[in-house]
Amino acid sequence: MKQIEPFAKTPKPPYYAVIFTSIKIDEDKGYAKMSEKMLDLLKVQEGFLGFESAREELGITVSYWENEESILKWKANIEHQEAQKLGKEVWYRSYKIRVAKVERDYEF
Amino acid sequence: MKQIEPFAKTPKPPYYAVIFTSIKIDEDKGYAKMSEKMLDLLKVQEGFLGFESAREELGITVSYWENEESILKWKANIEHQEAQKLGKEVWYRSYKIRVAKVERDYEF
Repeated sequence: MKQIEPFAKTPKPPYYAVIFTSIKIDEDKGYAKMSEKMLDLLKVQEGFLGFESAREELGITVSYWENEESILKWKANIEHQEAQKLGKEVWYRSYKIRVAKVERDYEF
Repeated sequence: MKQIEPFAKTPKPPYYAVIFTSIKIDEDKGYAKMSEKMLDLLKVQEGFLGFESAREELGITVSYWENEESILKWKANIEHQEAQKLGKEVWYRSYKIRVAKVERDYEF
């Protein structure tokens, strides 16, 4: 996934961050296409604030959310559920998800 | 920076995450050497739990901490202060830091 802006434009804290760390298989196997589809869906999700992503051996995607409820709704989204299933079955060797409340932020 | 393990071995939540998102200059200018030095320092910091890092256009480094106090101590560390100064003056075009409390996590 590619973000258009360098950093996600998040509001003043508090808000939520979902830190998704993953190891992918080398082959694409439909991953790029699904990523695009998920990104289109994400953009219209209630409470979605933006995301940041980078991958070397390890991939890190941090998505930002207004509150916990919006995170749970996204997790339960039917099309996202299908992507999660394929993620486990096909694309990811392993992943870790951490849900965190952003308490303060600053930039340079 | 390279992590040895794929994912940081963090304890059961709650604990803290510092999400550091950055845009670097293209040249190294001493960055790699300083990263190694900072990693050596980090490893012996009280309350440091581990980190995960990846860079494409955007760099994302997430470091994990036992509590807020340990984050503030690391921020105030003299050698780290020098690295922060050089970061602003030399290596980073811009960065954003978010301090967040990890409330729950799960993995696959």
